[in-house]
Amino acid sequence: MGNMRELLVGVDIGGTKTAVLLTTRDGQVLSETVVPTLSQSPEQVVYSVCHAVAIVLNGAGGTVSDVAAIGAGVPGLVERDAGIVRMAANLNLEHYPLGATLSAEFHTPVLIENDVRAATVGIYHHLNQTEPLRHLAYLSVGTGISAGMVLNGQLYRGTNGMAGEIGHVVVDPDGILCSCGQRGCLETIVAGPAIARHAANYFAQPVTASEVYEAAVRGSAAAAEIVRHVSTLLARTIQWLVMAYDVEKVVIGGGVANSGDAFLQPILSHFAHLRVHSPLTQMMLPDSKIMLLPAGFNAGTWGALHLARQATQLHV
Amino acid sequence: MGNMRELLVGVDIGGTKTAVLLTTRDGQVLSETVVPTLSQSPEQVVYSVCHAVAIVLNGAGGTVSDVAAIGAGVPGLVERDAGIVRMAANLNLEHYPLGATLSAEFHTPVLIENDVRAATVGIYHHLNQTEPLRHLAYLSVGTGISAGMVLNGQLYRGTNGMAGEIGHVVVDPDGILCSCGQRGCLETIVAGPAIARHAANYFAQPVTASEVYEAAVRGSAAAAEIVRHVSTLLARTIQWLVMAYDVEKVVIGGGVANSGDAFLQPILSHFAHLRVHSPLTQMMLPDSKIMLLPAGFNAGTWGALHLARQATQLHV
Repeated sequence: MGNMRELLVGVDIGGTKTAVLLTTRDGQVLSETVVPTLSQSPEQVVYSVCHAVAIVLNGAGGTVSDVAAIGAGVPGLVERDAGIVRMAANLNLEHYPLGATLSAEFHTPVLIENDVRAATVGIYHHLNQTEPLRHLAYLSVGTGISAGMVLNGQLYRGTNGMAGEIGHVVVDPDGILCSCGQRGCLETIVAGPAIARHAANYFAQPVTASEVYEAAVRGSAAAAEIVRHVSTLLARTIQWLVMAYDVEKVVIGGGVANSGDAFLQPILSHFAHLRVHSPLTQMMLPDSKIMLLPAGFNAGTWGALHLARQATQLHV
Repeated sequence: MGNMRELLVGVDIGGTKTAVLLTTRDGQVLSETVVPTLSQSPEQVVYSVCHAVAIVLNGAGGTVSDVAAIGAGVPGLVERDAGIVRMAANLNLEHYPLGATLSAEFHTPVLIENDVRAATVGIYHHLNQTEPLRHLAYLSVGTGISAGMVLNGQLYRGTNGMAGEIGHVVVDPDGILCSCGQRGCLETIVAGPAIARHAANYFAQPVTASEVYEAAVRGSAAAAEIVRHVSTLLARTIQWLVMAYDVEKVVIGGGVANSGDAFLQPILSHFAHLRVHSPLTQMMLPDSKIMLLPAGFNAGTWGALHLARQATQLHV
């Protein structure tokens, strides 16, 4: 590489896989990779990131000294300004200075952020290219459920970096115990493991959330009933987000949303039904407001890349 | 008055009363008044405002030419930048250019805003004097229920000025028909008229929401049951606001909240119960985060006054 410090690195650290994107400062993609996340210790997590970054640099013929900054999305509660992962259960991290550690490894500024929030930034910039946007919500439905928001063109984090952690709103006070200590949190009903658990009451063998959606499309009455229940709650969640933030778009992603149309259509049907009698719903919840994450777009690494760009303005 | 254009006027136009506050530019109170709102026509509404402003000016020995700007809160959907009241059912206003009309009357800049949002601005500045705040939600529980938000120190309005209109989130799909055309909106259960309607099933004569709260304190089992139901839903609403916005404070006001401790304590009990088993609730919902509107503080007129200050930066 001719120019020093002309590369940006976006890292999406998942519970099982770590994806890395390497671009020039103006966003031209040079190389990408995905490696397994080793997560038995903080050192293993750091090793996974270093390993993946080495691969993309090698692929582009670059070296560590070419990197201007690194952004990283982490599945957990992140203190962004301190660079600390307060808690990331799937990575076995607790009060871990991931930002400083990676910064010392690569001698470059590092900005870390919650993964859903990083993805929100990626989606915002992606959509904003073709259609100017001010307010956006990203709803991630996977192992858990949470939302990220860009309001007035800026990522909104709230007082404790907890804004959008709606998975722990109680929707059924008599429901099952949640890991957070409450009963009947949204997450205990509409997230992937919750759907699979619900399905276990109806099916002879264990099934995943995506298998439930497939079975519903194929005509299974039991699966259709589970999908109906989940979709009603998701529709109500989206209505909450729209009435709370009055965003221009709600984008839905995450493992469960990967079921695509089988996932989205029952939610849209719910709103179509509400719109029949309600001018307010017609105004606030047209189909055009709700979309799945564009197929093939890696929101996590692109969002992390935008964080890296932000980090170039920080001190090393 | 010695100085020209040195006065600010804050107007809170309610369905039955219009309150006006007159101050110097630095917020020294000169005079206040409350007049009945005449609301059979747009002209009557404008007359009510003019009448009240004349009273406060007269009270302070000032004239219209001393007024630097006017801010006004309106109970309805407001297009702030255009100065248009899109819809205010209680004032019989629809697509009415209230801003331009008042501006022409007084030859001064006028900024109008939804009343709950105006009150939110008032509360924010009031609390911020003693305790610096970045993120605040104000939940108004009266004839309807809606929330105003200050995020990062700025009023947040959303794409259509609908941010916080949570009264029309569906909480009971089999519930009664709402004026908005949906069934079982939050507003059909926890607002003042909804509580009175619910009580009508239990009491021989018509009772108001505040009488229901009083009866519950005096030991009426039926009233206590209604209060329990309403408080549970309000607690869940507050939890939604806190998880969605991660605000530092949730302030509750409006006609129903005027019942004071009888209103607040059942909500706090709900959270105390949740906190027993949930570290997340301990972190996010301590009692100190939730407060009633300070007694004697007129959030509506003070908020409108801050809008007037903003309006001094607009062109006449």
